[in-house]
Amino acid sequence: MATAKGNKQQPVILITNDDGIMAPGIFNLIEAVKGLGKIIVVAPDKPQSGMGHAITIGSPLRLQQVHLMKGIEAWSCSGTPVDCVKLATDKILHKKPDICLSGINHGANHSINVIYSGTMSAAIEASIENIPSIGFSLLDYSMEADFSMAKKYARIIVEKIIKRRSDKHLCLNVNFPAVDESLVSGVKVCRQAYAKFEEDFDERKDPAGKKYYWLSGAFVNFDKGKDTDVWALSNNYVSVVPVQFDLTNYVLKTKLEKIFKP
Amino acid sequence: MATAKGNKQQPVILITNDDGIMAPGIFNLIEAVKGLGKIIVVAPDKPQSGMGHAITIGSPLRLQQVHLMKGIEAWSCSGTPVDCVKLATDKILHKKPDICLSGINHGANHSINVIYSGTMSAAIEASIENIPSIGFSLLDYSMEADFSMAKKYARIIVEKIIKRRSDKHLCLNVNFPAVDESLVSGVKVCRQAYAKFEEDFDERKDPAGKKYYWLSGAFVNFDKGKDTDVWALSNNYVSVVPVQFDLTNYVLKTKLEKIFKP
Repeated sequence: MATAKGNKQQPVILITNDDGIMAPGIFNLIEAVKGLGKIIVVAPDKPQSGMGHAITIGSPLRLQQVHLMKGIEAWSCSGTPVDCVKLATDKILHKKPDICLSGINHGANHSINVIYSGTMSAAIEASIENIPSIGFSLLDYSMEADFSMAKKYARIIVEKIIKRRSDKHLCLNVNFPAVDESLVSGVKVCRQAYAKFEEDFDERKDPAGKKYYWLSGAFVNFDKGKDTDVWALSNNYVSVVPVQFDLTNYVLKTKLEKIFKP
Repeated sequence: MATAKGNKQQPVILITNDDGIMAPGIFNLIEAVKGLGKIIVVAPDKPQSGMGHAITIGSPLRLQQVHLMKGIEAWSCSGTPVDCVKLATDKILHKKPDICLSGINHGANHSINVIYSGTMSAAIEASIENIPSIGFSLLDYSMEADFSMAKKYARIIVEKIIKRRSDKHLCLNVNFPAVDESLVSGVKVCRQAYAKFEEDFDERKDPAGKKYYWLSGAFVNFDKGKDTDVWALSNNYVSVVPVQFDLTNYVLKTKLEKIFKP
């Protein structure tokens, strides 16, 4: 991959996440790719899980330079993960980084989660901006999660992508099973499984007797394919799903042209 | 289309938006489809533009029944447009509506806007839930916008979709040009144009001298195709783009399988 200026300088690696700049996952991602390029961290100042592709348009944004790790330039941002990518490019780097990495997320972003995930939306935003990107997630929500296997495989994947002059819109959704390295079956390129959440809001009453609701629900997989990310992860593979931002349903487009013919 | 119970009852039409339950656009959408089924409105209690596919997971949600229009059941919701669809189905209707309509948005949701738009994310959420859905947007941000043409075409499109037993995951992104009805070229089924925003954050200083940023930027179309929504709208067509939630990039998947082969 050429660097941002097309010369032989080390590549600029932008790192963000949606769990916030103090989450263990982002420390582990920095450690995973140390030495592969010049790292800049721009991440939300608070957890932003489930923010999807939200951008901040009704209020102003703040950036604050912070100490995160020796030798690493880091900024906390008051906005969403997508805001972080936009601000990093426009106001901190003043150019596009060579690659954008997001995560490592605490919890799965396989299948339909790609749509709700702030981690993946940051990566998708980068790919819209012609910045190759990878979002990483570990199937373990715990703050004490063991990231050692995820770190090893994240570095292998980033090295592979940096080595190649990759598709300018490349965006990968990488998920790690929550297993010890010795049990990993390998890396598997997959499609997004058709799975979704079956909502079951938790209905409660406040002290005044008025109802309120907590989003809750169960993840249900309807997809029996062995080429999906859900299958790969349940068989201890690291799953890699290439993601696109063209949402056109071309199959349905052909059908609709008949319905709406002049 | 069969009704929710599969009998000959009138279809249940869920209406939401991202401009908030008091926006003129949602009143116009209700008027547009009055008589086509039983209408239930569940919409955000405040503007939620640019919220993308955000869901509320860190705080509880409220629902409040409100008077909006005679004979129409309406609820305001403290959450995002996607939260509205989830709560409407699980806690108000206690079943899936036959169709979900979102809008009419004040401003364009063509091309890449589909990713940032709360209006379109509500429609996409419905389609994930096997509820056929249509998001409507008018290329006019004004609160005094003239919705008369949009209303007429919205009704035509909804009638067409209700008539057919449509794809259970059908999701349409419909945009109306800001022109008088006499100037409309017709309805055109399109693909999503490759266009994006070139950010240019507005940097200011607060009274304490600290910097803050307002998201700003220009919309740039890189796509010269005549089969895109941007082309259609600039030629006075009502654009209809079928939208999917499978984000897998199948072309890139084949390439990656070579890079990541065991």
